[in-house]
Amino acid sequence: MSGSTYGNIFKVTTWGESHGRALGVVIDGCPAGIALKEKDIQKEMDRRKPGSTKYGTQRREGDNVEILSGVFEGRTTGTPISLILYNQDQRSRDYSNIQNIFRPGHADMGFEMKYGIRDYRGGGRSSGRETAARVAAGAVAKKLLKELGVKINAYTLSIGDVRAENINLECCKENPLYMPDNEAAKRASELLDKAMAERDSVGGVIECRTKGLPIGIGEPVFDKLDACIAKAVTSIGAVKGIEFGDGFKAALSKGSVNNDDFYIRSGRIKKHTNHSGGVLGGFSDGAELVFRAAFKPTPSIAKVQKTITNTGESTEIVITGRHDPIVVPRAVVVVEAMTAITLADLMLMNMAARIDKIKEFYS
Amino acid sequence: MSGSTYGNIFKVTTWGESHGRALGVVIDGCPAGIALKEKDIQKEMDRRKPGSTKYGTQRREGDNVEILSGVFEGRTTGTPISLILYNQDQRSRDYSNIQNIFRPGHADMGFEMKYGIRDYRGGGRSSGRETAARVAAGAVAKKLLKELGVKINAYTLSIGDVRAENINLECCKENPLYMPDNEAAKRASELLDKAMAERDSVGGVIECRTKGLPIGIGEPVFDKLDACIAKAVTSIGAVKGIEFGDGFKAALSKGSVNNDDFYIRSGRIKKHTNHSGGVLGGFSDGAELVFRAAFKPTPSIAKVQKTITNTGESTEIVITGRHDPIVVPRAVVVVEAMTAITLADLMLMNMAARIDKIKEFYS
Amino acid sequence: MSGSTYGNIFKVTTWGESHGRALGVVIDGCPAGIALKEKDIQKEMDRRKPGSTKYGTQRREGDNVEILSGVFEGRTTGTPISLILYNQDQRSRDYSNIQNIFRPGHADMGFEMKYGIRDYRGGGRSSGRETAARVAAGAVAKKLLKELGVKINAYTLSIGDVRAENINLECCKENPLYMPDNEAAKRASELLDKAMAERDSVGGVIECRTKGLPIGIGEPVFDKLDACIAKAVTSIGAVKGIEFGDGFKAALSKGSVNNDDFYIRSGRIKKHTNHSGGVLGGFSDGAELVFRAAFKPTPSIAKVQKTITNTGESTEIVITGRHDPIVVPRAVVVVEAMTAITLADLMLMNMAARIDKIKEFYS
Amino acid sequence: MSGSTYGNIFKVTTWGESHGRALGVVIDGCPAGIALKEKDIQKEMDRRKPGSTKYGTQRREGDNVEILSGVFEGRTTGTPISLILYNQDQRSRDYSNIQNIFRPGHADMGFEMKYGIRDYRGGGRSSGRETAARVAAGAVAKKLLKELGVKINAYTLSIGDVRAENINLECCKENPLYMPDNEAAKRASELLDKAMAERDSVGGVIECRTKGLPIGIGEPVFDKLDACIAKAVTSIGAVKGIEFGDGFKAALSKGSVNNDDFYIRSGRIKKHTNHSGGVLGGFSDGAELVFRAAFKPTPSIAKVQKTITNTGESTEIVITGRHDPIVVPRAVVVVEAMTAITLADLMLMNMAARIDKIKEFYS
Repeated sequence: MSGSTYGNIFKVTTWGESHGRALGVVIDGCPAGIALKEKDIQKEMDRRKPGSTKYGTQRREGDNVEILSGVFEGRTTGTPISLILYNQDQRSRDYSNIQNIFRPGHADMGFEMKYGIRDYRGGGRSSGRETAARVAAGAVAKKLLKELGVKINAYTLSIGDVRAENINLECCKENPLYMPDNEAAKRASELLDKAMAERDSVGGVIECRTKGLPIGIGEPVFDKLDACIAKAVTSIGAVKGIEFGDGFKAALSKGSVNNDDFYIRSGRIKKHTNHSGGVLGGFSDGAELVFRAAFKPTPSIAKVQKTITNTGESTEIVITGRHDPIVVPRAVVVVEAMTAITLADLMLMNMAARIDKIKEFYS
Repeated sequence: MSGSTYGNIFKVTTWGESHGRALGVVIDGCPAGIALKEKDIQKEMDRRKPGSTKYGTQRREGDNVEILSGVFEGRTTGTPISLILYNQDQRSRDYSNIQNIFRPGHADMGFEMKYGIRDYRGGGRSSGRETAARVAAGAVAKKLLKELGVKINAYTLSIGDVRAENINLECCKENPLYMPDNEAAKRASELLDKAMAERDSVGGVIECRTKGLPIGIGEPVFDKLDACIAKAVTSIGAVKGIEFGDGFKAALSKGSVNNDDFYIRSGRIKKHTNHSGGVLGGFSDGAELVFRAAFKPTPSIAKVQKTITNTGESTEIVITGRHDPIVVPRAVVVVEAMTAITLADLMLMNMAARIDKIKEFYS
Repeated sequence: MSGSTYGNIFKVTTWGESHGRALGVVIDGCPAGIALKEKDIQKEMDRRKPGSTKYGTQRREGDNVEILSGVFEGRTTGTPISLILYNQDQRSRDYSNIQNIFRPGHADMGFEMKYGIRDYRGGGRSSGRETAARVAAGAVAKKLLKELGVKINAYTLSIGDVRAENINLECCKENPLYMPDNEAAKRASELLDKAMAERDSVGGVIECRTKGLPIGIGEPVFDKLDACIAKAVTSIGAVKGIEFGDGFKAALSKGSVNNDDFYIRSGRIKKHTNHSGGVLGGFSDGAELVFRAAFKPTPSIAKVQKTITNTGESTEIVITGRHDPIVVPRAVVVVEAMTAITLADLMLMNMAARIDKIKEFYS
Repeated sequence: MSGSTYGNIFKVTTWGESHGRALGVVIDGCPAGIALKEKDIQKEMDRRKPGSTKYGTQRREGDNVEILSGVFEGRTTGTPISLILYNQDQRSRDYSNIQNIFRPGHADMGFEMKYGIRDYRGGGRSSGRETAARVAAGAVAKKLLKELGVKINAYTLSIGDVRAENINLECCKENPLYMPDNEAAKRASELLDKAMAERDSVGGVIECRTKGLPIGIGEPVFDKLDACIAKAVTSIGAVKGIEFGDGFKAALSKGSVNNDDFYIRSGRIKKHTNHSGGVLGGFSDGAELVFRAAFKPTPSIAKVQKTITNTGESTEIVITGRHDPIVVPRAVVVVEAMTAITLADLMLMNMAARIDKIKEFYS
């Protein structure tokens, strides 16, 4: 349980360091018979590809995903799907500035203290690059969910204090920040330019909305829908908080306002409001699943910072190279991926809930 | 994986319905040799006991915990510790007002849609009473953590818009709201009196602080310290959000501010600030672990609400009986319990991190 | 993962020591809607009850099972089913003869060396009494399997060198040894009488046959049907070996003999022979699932044995009290239970195998 | 939980089809700081390499293992170790003879019935080639165990009715059958020549002996040492039975003979005999861990066999190409691998057993 495997039935295991030979993911438990091509996955990889805008790192990773197993004649076979991404930009570099130094805001210190050894090249396993494997697995989970009518959309809700006000998902494709509000995106760009000029970075918030979940997804008590999503999303580096529906504002509300009334339309259970964010008592409640994740500012900044070496000496560090002044736009697809993986797993789990449906399945 | 088991090594399985014969918990994987008495657990149970203040339900549960196994001559033996709480207040009642009706803001609808059957008596498995078993397990986890020098303190940070400003943990014992600020507690009491008069309820925020964690607790990638805590705490009913350190405010910050600089004092790694809340890259970073959880207002209110029956008819409901107008004060010990269980598990897991220490262990 | 929890979806957690207050089991993940009464479980408990024959221990355990949760109005609700058995024969005894002594052939030594503490009363957690909880869980698993048309029958195949030759399952109820051959049972009884007279014990073999499994149960590679059964059955105390189909005799066979030819009858896949024992490549193959487990002789014997104390002194021990001269007859229902629990879990797991069926399930 | 992941702390996930691009394994939870080179693993791979003797398939796989992650500057880092083996002998072939036909004794039928699709090329995921990934992972587990003083040796105990009588482990390297008795190996070779001439195959038995295990490895009840080994070894294709110590012969023994007496030598607990095979009550008992696994004859034979097509027609099949007439010699290293993986996991798990040692660890 050292943490690189996630899920119970739809089970994902990622591996790989930022500047190692390759990184990848093994998806075990994906149902057989799903049409799957490399380009289905590549399409998602491209959404987190760096270097596409001036706010992304200039590294050209390529991120060309290859399917090594588990797919035969264009369909999943039920056996593990192994996906690999070779690190193309793996030239020898000078790491002397970080080799023996703990960067503030990074996992360097934790890795070295816990394991006594650390692959310092590009952050090793703690690099944001690790999320590429999650996105690849998420692409497969999305293919599964699509078959079941479930659709996930995440987007940049805010960057610094600039917040999207008029949500229009179409806009996400029109600006490099995946913001559903082009006017806000423009202001956010100005904010980012300013931060870059100051050798600084900013944080932001991603919102995620899922449509099409049947009622009852999530398992009571510890594996509640929101609990599982909370873990999945908080496990993304830089996430410092998550909230569902009204979230922290619910703490300021009253029961008479916060409760969503039920009604029936066309024989289906509906709610007049969605303060709950689509999750009630740990189960999906039929409304849109809505949550927001807060991301801290990129810790890699070009300003001088005080820190220590791994032998306990005081020192200063200036992180060179180009780094994203904001992680949020590239993390949008990562949030979707972790959501997709979690929902795929919970939907498969849910099949064992009641004997009448199990009997029907086996008859 | 239907969700009532939590943890990998220190593994907790809870069971029981609100108005069934009993509820309880089995703790498997608790190390042998820990001194454990029923009163160690009872002390914690009493902290969540209802009826102790006018803001708690008037039900007299008793909540007398019994140890049924796993302890011999006052010490844990390494075998499963089974704890049971009999439901003393289990008299036959009239449930006709909720038997066929889905209460807004409750899990009733989800349970019935998922399983096709629902123990409607007092909310069954989705009752807040389920957390009694968590508190019992948490008491055992705390005993383990105490041996390792780890101490957890949670408290009511805010109720509605009343927030504790001058945190003094001693105050928590002096007011019935577990607020670390007596003056704020007084104003919060007035707020609650008003809400009760209006047959309404309010939400609040719990803050939790853990001291004494060694550096490096948490497993990289999916089982990060914050990810595991996020799941554990979000799995408590009524929690709608969680944030670590600066949390959602970090999204408004800059890298140059948000990064905590390292320095060395008396040979130990320290940070000048703690914006991270004690978790960096998914590992404990040696600073205090700090997080906040947002609780929605109690969904059970005595106001008339519109809803539906389980056969899809429109109806109205008034929830009778006495219900807490706020869940937060009683949930403080539940937040501590889930934190304790998670940390106990992660500290045991961490022992397998490096071969030099493993060799030393076995030599 | 300290070992008292078993299964992935249909998940069983047992607890309790032989001479503690009680023992029990929590079954999480049992589908909702299964009719379940205490007497359904009691019926199975009675099959392993000691004291019913002269070959069983004279202890009167009673073994009256109580359902504490998870069942409402006669049906499972999908929430954890907690079953408890109070230890009625729990009077204070003199354990001085085993308190500080490691009985040969027992787990005493392992428990004390591993945990540094041992509940020596009646063997504590390592007592055969622990299997009562397995039988209770197995009774629930059988109810589930019955709904799906799966039927398990185990029986005593041999005791010492006396082997049932003409298998007639009806005979199992007619002799106290659960042997499917009354004539063999008679000879086995004589063998047991002789062993008892000599203050000795004997071993034996249990055979288990399961009908009605659909093709394809079991998960490839590590969670193969036979691998899972092998673990489940070997985890029963006293089991020293397990074999499927021809088992160890297959090692003496030839491919041309051992391969079972396929043919079609009434549109269903059949095999002319069943050397495989119903499991091929880790999947059920549509034929009867057949395996045998070897049980060692009861280690508790009234003969003088050399051993050591827990402080490392040489000593002798004579195990007093009445002990079964053979564990096999009482273990028959335990073997069935572990088989049932394993098959229930694998049948629920199998539902996630292919997308066409999953789509159908959710449509 | 579709079965390609094994272990709790030392966790192994294998992937890959026989004739796909590659196959591999991800090892998560391997402690940091272990010296590891590709040649450490390659050495083990070479032991199962086909084509080295006339009894192995003539396919030249190469089996050159590459380390893709988790190792830095020659040492493990605690992050997932990804190992890959490219399939070099992957030329296009004619599979028309097996594409639509279920080979008797193979998993073809199960795969197609369970998943509705099957990668028929070379047996796909059910090929013996899948064990290459296990051997690679086993090599890493052995490196860990070596640090802890644990040494595993498996060998061919018997082929058909030819059994090694005078066990001399040195002989294993001197004959192509890994038999610890050269004279028996000669007779076994003659048996195999005869079987090949008859287009038939034979079975055999592998024995495995582990030295150096401390007392107390294994977790009570379900995760007993022998139960875990039983699962691990039975999950190897072609295994039809496993027994520990005296195994099935224990069923014919008496308690007075089967019990191993304890004594003390040089302050350590010893046993006069080892009927138990080194496992008592599910824990290692300090003696050599001894078990035997029965392998069925290779199902791929060149004789005409009756079978069916995947559309239910009767047909005949002759399996062409060269196939091993016996799987046992190549499976020796696979048995060692599964044993090593299981013991590595259980030894890490065991560290959480008692609070005194945990406190010492953290102090």
